[in-house]
Amino acid sequence: MSADVPRGMTVGEHVHSADRVAERRARVALSKVVEPLDPALGPVILEHGPVEAWDRIRDNAGGRFERAAARVRALNVDQVLSVAERLRIRVVIPGDVEWPSVLDDLDYPPVCLWVKGSADLASVVARSVAIVGARSATPYGVQVAGEIAHGLAIRGFTVVSGAAFGIDVAAHRGALAAQVDTVAAMAGGVDRPYPAAHTSILRQIEEAGAVIAESPPGASPQRQRFLARNRLIAALTPGTVVVEAGLRSGSLNTVGHAESLSRVVAAVPGSVYSPTSAGCHALLRDGRAVVVTDAAECAELLGEVGTDLAPIRRGKERPRDDLAEVPRRVFDALLSHRASSVDRLTQVAGLSASEVMSGLGHLQLQGLASSTGSGWCRATGRSSG
Amino acid sequence: MSADVPRGMTVGEHVHSADRVAERRARVALSKVVEPLDPALGPVILEHGPVEAWDRIRDNAGGRFERAAARVRALNVDQVLSVAERLRIRVVIPGDVEWPSVLDDLDYPPVCLWVKGSADLASVVARSVAIVGARSATPYGVQVAGEIAHGLAIRGFTVVSGAAFGIDVAAHRGALAAQVDTVAAMAGGVDRPYPAAHTSILRQIEEAGAVIAESPPGASPQRQRFLARNRLIAALTPGTVVVEAGLRSGSLNTVGHAESLSRVVAAVPGSVYSPTSAGCHALLRDGRAVVVTDAAECAELLGEVGTDLAPIRRGKERPRDDLAEVPRRVFDALLSHRASSVDRLTQVAGLSASEVMSGLGHLQLQGLASSTGSGWCRATGRSSG
Repeated sequence: MSADVPRGMTVGEHVHSADRVAERRARVALSKVVEPLDPALGPVILEHGPVEAWDRIRDNAGGRFERAAARVRALNVDQVLSVAERLRIRVVIPGDVEWPSVLDDLDYPPVCLWVKGSADLASVVARSVAIVGARSATPYGVQVAGEIAHGLAIRGFTVVSGAAFGIDVAAHRGALAAQVDTVAAMAGGVDRPYPAAHTSILRQIEEAGAVIAESPPGASPQRQRFLARNRLIAALTPGTVVVEAGLRSGSLNTVGHAESLSRVVAAVPGSVYSPTSAGCHALLRDGRAVVVTDAAECAELLGEVGTDLAPIRRGKERPRDDLAEVPRRVFDALLSHRASSVDRLTQVAGLSASEVMSGLGHLQLQGLASSTGSGWCRATGRSSG
Repeated sequence: MSADVPRGMTVGEHVHSADRVAERRARVALSKVVEPLDPALGPVILEHGPVEAWDRIRDNAGGRFERAAARVRALNVDQVLSVAERLRIRVVIPGDVEWPSVLDDLDYPPVCLWVKGSADLASVVARSVAIVGARSATPYGVQVAGEIAHGLAIRGFTVVSGAAFGIDVAAHRGALAAQVDTVAAMAGGVDRPYPAAHTSILRQIEEAGAVIAESPPGASPQRQRFLARNRLIAALTPGTVVVEAGLRSGSLNTVGHAESLSRVVAAVPGSVYSPTSAGCHALLRDGRAVVVTDAAECAELLGEVGTDLAPIRRGKERPRDDLAEVPRRVFDALLSHRASSVDRLTQVAGLSASEVMSGLGHLQLQGLASSTGSGWCRATGRSSG
């Protein structure tokens, strides 16, 4: 499959037209030359469209694009595409069926996505969730991330994360354990497993889902690219769950993007003594996130209304919880170990004799009171289960 | 000191008048005969005032007050008052200086309060906080409750709680450790330490604060009285902090009262695996409570605006966090272990040569880059602290 030809079905009449091919090549070139979110060059692409923007940047029109010049000189689009094809990396651009249209919510959408893996990206992110958090996660956070990811995966959500140490990889692992697609968005090229320790799990993610990046193959992971990558994770999903985050965690950057895109933000609580829960608690305290404690609550928050309602958590009920006022007061006045007379019960309960008699009758029917020779005492009670 | 005479200074002209004495005796009688929140008798007191209501209930007017009859027959107000005096328990009623006027926010305020202890109740609850939670608290909850109570106590807040096992007693202990007044609101009489295991700490609370109850001396703690007691804790304080609570914890009853009184409700987060944090998380999830993780955050929430602002929690700053776009991109392109030429940096960073030079100059001034014979590399950086 040539990287010039979109994967699978495509949209519109002009797919194989020369225009479309030119746009694809321009986007590939821009991806190689312009950093994601470059404040000088990004607006040029937005204003002129990719083909015209590429012409200007390539030609350093008006001497305004000097910062791109060194990369332009080094660029060979045909070579980039043939290397990508050899690595089984495809280019996805707006208009392709596989392009997730939610990315168009971004002020500066990526010029293209580089995708490696078996999943159709647009399909798998349609019902998805971002699970993010601290690299320096605690065993608690790793466990919660894995369980929530697994629980969401078996509910049909694609877990999107960044394949980093800690929460990210725990989330991917949870989804893989459910044998469900998961998507890893990388800061560098999709051919550069990062961190290197995750080479093998990234290969599993490719097999069962997709590894994607805005930066082209060969790009190293850099700080700016991590920040840009975070906005992709936020944009691709209807909601972001922060499992653990320190007060300056990169996850909070993802949350900022999710907020500005009106996506749902949820945070998992933890110990007040854990620095890696402090960021989650700050989000909750500032009203920037909703608390979630398990996959069911996440699904309810993220899923379609009515189809993913979390079961209401209830404590264990006790038979006396349902008693009306009078029988409850009689029950409270009864002793377990000694019989009380009706007279005594009227005084202890502060009720009339007829109320006490009525209450005792009710309790007896419920199996909560029994009469002895000398009066009344508590009985064990039937289960109300 | 006679229990008929209010402690300390009193309000109004009629304090020692016969009316005032009659009202006090009527309230004492009602406290002995009518259960807190009795749905049949409570409205009578509200409608007719304590003196008239007591006349009607005592005389079983119209045969409507049969449920009080046994207790009326057994009542001897003089004896009640002399026993209280002997036990150094005082009666506080509306109009007394010591009456906390916040109790008048209740639909059914207590007819009187029975108070034992050295503190002036109205004074100490003026700046106060309720700290409540599960009896079956975990070591985590006990530690958090103690630390929050201690931190609030040293900030001048009186800790109000219920002296129960678990969170309650941990909160009282935290306040006592700061040698600050604390108030225990009891479900039974103030002369009946409950639980019995807390007899000694309740004595310490009396010495340094107050033990109070709506039910009269001698009253045993009963379920209905716990529920009524919870509303006092909520009403006495501008806010309630739930440290740990199961899904059916009595603390959630206190929260319900705090909500209906428009008091602040805060909840401490914890492990999602802890059943005793599940009630806190449910409160947060339902938007019924604000998350708090330490005393400073509680103080900010409860204290006067502007005087009790919690310090903003910040992670550790790194020197490169403050860099502008261009120097940051140059910094990211630099290696620590190998020198890079300016040519190389223009391509890696995607910047013009002049931008790279300007960025390097900036980084050098900050101590973040250094030049070697063959190019530039990262330097350790000065602390920005």
